[in-house]
Amino acid sequence: MADPVAPPTPPPEGTEAKGPSKNELKKRAKEAEKAKKAAEKAAKQAELQAQQASTEEDFAKDNYGKLPLNQSSSRPRRQRTQIKDLSDSLDGQTVLMRCRIQTSRAQGNKMVFLNLRQRIDSVQALIIVDKENVSKQMAKWAAGLMMESIVLVEGVVKKAPEPIKSATVQDVEINIIKIYLESGIEGRLPFTLEDASRADEEVETAETQLNRVLLETRLNNRVIDLRTQTNQAVFKLQHGIGLLFREYLESQGFTEIHTPKLQGAATESGASVFKVNYFKGAAFLAQSPQLAKQMAIAADFERVYEIGPVFRAEDSNTHRHMTEFVGLDLEMAIQEHYHEVMELLDSLFLSIFRGLRERYSKESETVRRQFPAEEFKWREGPEGTLKLTFKEATDLLVEDGVPREVLDDINTENEKRLGRIIKAKYDTDYFIIDKFPMELRPFYTMPDPDDPTLSNSYDFFMRGEEILSGAQRIHDPTLLIEQMKKKGIEPESMKHYVDAFRMGCPPHGGGGIGLERVLMFFFKLNNIRRASMFPRDPKRLEP
Amino acid sequence: MADPVAPPTPPPEGTEAKGPSKNELKKRAKEAEKAKKAAEKAAKQAELQAQQASTEEDFAKDNYGKLPLNQSSSRPRRQRTQIKDLSDSLDGQTVLMRCRIQTSRAQGNKMVFLNLRQRIDSVQALIIVDKENVSKQMAKWAAGLMMESIVLVEGVVKKAPEPIKSATVQDVEINIIKIYLESGIEGRLPFTLEDASRADEEVETAETQLNRVLLETRLNNRVIDLRTQTNQAVFKLQHGIGLLFREYLESQGFTEIHTPKLQGAATESGASVFKVNYFKGAAFLAQSPQLAKQMAIAADFERVYEIGPVFRAEDSNTHRHMTEFVGLDLEMAIQEHYHEVMELLDSLFLSIFRGLRERYSKESETVRRQFPAEEFKWREGPEGTLKLTFKEATDLLVEDGVPREVLDDINTENEKRLGRIIKAKYDTDYFIIDKFPMELRPFYTMPDPDDPTLSNSYDFFMRGEEILSGAQRIHDPTLLIEQMKKKGIEPESMKHYVDAFRMGCPPHGGGGIGLERVLMFFFKLNNIRRASMFPRDPKRLEP
Repeated sequence: MADPVAPPTPPPEGTEAKGPSKNELKKRAKEAEKAKKAAEKAAKQAELQAQQASTEEDFAKDNYGKLPLNQSSSRPRRQRTQIKDLSDSLDGQTVLMRCRIQTSRAQGNKMVFLNLRQRIDSVQALIIVDKENVSKQMAKWAAGLMMESIVLVEGVVKKAPEPIKSATVQDVEINIIKIYLESGIEGRLPFTLEDASRADEEVETAETQLNRVLLETRLNNRVIDLRTQTNQAVFKLQHGIGLLFREYLESQGFTEIHTPKLQGAATESGASVFKVNYFKGAAFLAQSPQLAKQMAIAADFERVYEIGPVFRAEDSNTHRHMTEFVGLDLEMAIQEHYHEVMELLDSLFLSIFRGLRERYSKESETVRRQFPAEEFKWREGPEGTLKLTFKEATDLLVEDGVPREVLDDINTENEKRLGRIIKAKYDTDYFIIDKFPMELRPFYTMPDPDDPTLSNSYDFFMRGEEILSGAQRIHDPTLLIEQMKKKGIEPESMKHYVDAFRMGCPPHGGGGIGLERVLMFFFKLNNIRRASMFPRDPKRLEP
Repeated sequence: MADPVAPPTPPPEGTEAKGPSKNELKKRAKEAEKAKKAAEKAAKQAELQAQQASTEEDFAKDNYGKLPLNQSSSRPRRQRTQIKDLSDSLDGQTVLMRCRIQTSRAQGNKMVFLNLRQRIDSVQALIIVDKENVSKQMAKWAAGLMMESIVLVEGVVKKAPEPIKSATVQDVEINIIKIYLESGIEGRLPFTLEDASRADEEVETAETQLNRVLLETRLNNRVIDLRTQTNQAVFKLQHGIGLLFREYLESQGFTEIHTPKLQGAATESGASVFKVNYFKGAAFLAQSPQLAKQMAIAADFERVYEIGPVFRAEDSNTHRHMTEFVGLDLEMAIQEHYHEVMELLDSLFLSIFRGLRERYSKESETVRRQFPAEEFKWREGPEGTLKLTFKEATDLLVEDGVPREVLDDINTENEKRLGRIIKAKYDTDYFIIDKFPMELRPFYTMPDPDDPTLSNSYDFFMRGEEILSGAQRIHDPTLLIEQMKKKGIEPESMKHYVDAFRMGCPPHGGGGIGLERVLMFFFKLNNIRRASMFPRDPKRLEP
């Protein structure tokens, strides 16, 4: 708090009797003027304090304690400060902040150190017993608050004597004069945020191993786990990828669409579709917006995208599979050649990569502290993204010693091996494989015009794992029916889809991206569940 | 096509014998220079034409006919023109365009009028038999193309002698010199786009009544129905509302989240939840992201939004219910009072309304041609949005003659009546009702601090129908459990949700908006199915 304004110094007594000199008179006038100004300032400050006092009554009578439940009974409109906005330019100012208590440590019975947190920002705060504001009782009460409690604190910003390494705001600390509990903890925290924030490597030392927080434990208590600065950053980055995806497609004239997840038939691939009880009948959850987005093209929307959940009923518990994930899907009419789509998708990815690097450096650094990884690399400039055909990719694997006879398809293991070969040879974590064999692709894939065993289809890879699958689609109903029959699909079972092409449809292509996969591979999170707020797998439907 | 360049005029014969004068020589030199330039220009043009000719071979040998199936066999990179970019400044230029044939009319055997369409734009094109480009066979073939066929046309832009009222581009027409069929129609169109584009009022005249296209027929053939200029505009507007929603929330520091649609328990309200076969057990489809978005607040995300499908297993076939729709959801921590949320939601709506008016006037006009309606009205300026309490709203109804004893709740009929009363009295189609009785709201609603029969909750209305429901939520686990028990919900059945509040949660509130409802009410589409690309209701799962 600012010191009360000192009254103007009275003139020395002895001089008064002699009568003031002219200079003395001038000096007194000046001082009087100064005093008047100071008095005005003091009055203003008193008024402000009185105002604050009246609004503070809304919080509590005392300067510490538990607040009554906030049911919106008053609205004093007091300004709140964000930790991220604190800096030494605010030195001496009083601020009001809602924070979590990240850690708390009492020093004797006269001082408490608190680390206060808002999302990825933190600041050190001190409670120091004094005669004016802070009683011993207050310090004791505050020292007893549990970690993760939400408190409302009022305090004075002070320049830190030396950088505070334990906080993200290092140049100031807060001298707390009031502290209230807004929301407490019932029971025991399943783990501390400190333990949950350790890098895996760090965890592996003998000292910290005991405090290791398993992924399973984290996911069971996801609400706490999500509070780590790492996870706050992870989901800011997830948000960023969606934003960058949209931003690029908007610039290319795409329309966002919303297609139904409830479908009348188990279409794309019957085996891995969830069945829903639909009134007296059945419905199925869409495995992707594939059919609907193609119908949107047949309905003249030209370029469409969708961001939405896709469902896969695959009983697989790998590091990269979930039963529900967020699909970033797009589909577009092509004018001449499907490479128009492939190139647009490539530009889209470059735009996302650049955006992450340029706009989210703070979040990226935060994540890297817990998940140290070599920075994701891609090729820029005239040489552009590395594009190989399926044939060239398998040749690389054969050269590296993989027997050709197992390379009808590239399995996960060989996918990763290919990623390593390409990283060593071309110094990139991002590449495209084009021209997949027709038999590896779904029925709606357009065959290559020159070699019917190949197709106009491509996959995109990040750190040696697939993150996008796409192709030119068949827009001709006769060829489509022929291909359906080859793959054992009854065209009648997908009548509405086939009919869309009977009513005229431009040539088109597209692709689908797994949002969580992009996030996981870019930052090497190693398990896709870390990239999903509330992940779902065959064994997990909660929380 | 440009005329061939004329050779320089030879000097008159008689003067040559005399020997040229100095002036004459100067003149000739000038002419020679001019001729050289013209020859260069002609050569350049010829080269360009030759180039074009070679690329045209990729389309077809002839200047009309069916194109081979586009399997991406070549990529001549010829520039395509969009109808919306046509104007008389292009007079005389040759353009290449892919379009639908909207209508076609032959005049004798020497002329064919085509109306060509791309999305909401159209232009008139002519095929006129001549000696150079257009044979009688070509005209005959083109006249036989079915409506809705996709054609690739090459033609010369000509200033229209008078405005062409049947097209959106009125100042030019296209003289076609080449026309190819890219994708044809198999079978018969279920209805014409002309019929599907009629305003309801227009349909009701005796002459056109026979051609009325019922909503049911439209939805059964949605791919065709979506091609009308009206529907192209409707879904551009749907896209616009999503964009404006996001834009405003991004400006207010919200994070976009994605929460799972598959849930472990039928939570919010057991009766209207779809059950899913989940491996050997069961899952349920989320009725809203309510629980998950509140958990995100308990996990410190502070301000979150989500755009995603929500599912309602209500066997109701009204004009405003679907079993799946797009929820625009948000949730935010409040500092002092839940009116912070209500006011933010209000600003959000105003931002959407203004955005629609300012950025989508072309699409709005297109929709209004088929769905004539008084323009949507809201209050701007210092008086702001009309806000009534539930009590004030029911008082208005009582004044209007509704017996108070039926007004424990406001049913759909009285909702509409209230809309009419308010429109008459306050001249607005948009208003807010605050302070709903506690018993009308879900268990997680925060009670009013002064009157426990009331709640800190609000609904927003457009044209007398609810489009948003929201409230402050209970963030205290003890009060939450108490309320759950009052409503007959077993807290143990929602353990993860209740636990989130045990670990400390700030006061918060939010709301959920139905995307399709906003679209339907703003433009008075009268049935929500018109605002959904592929609507789902108890009787419809296709297409």
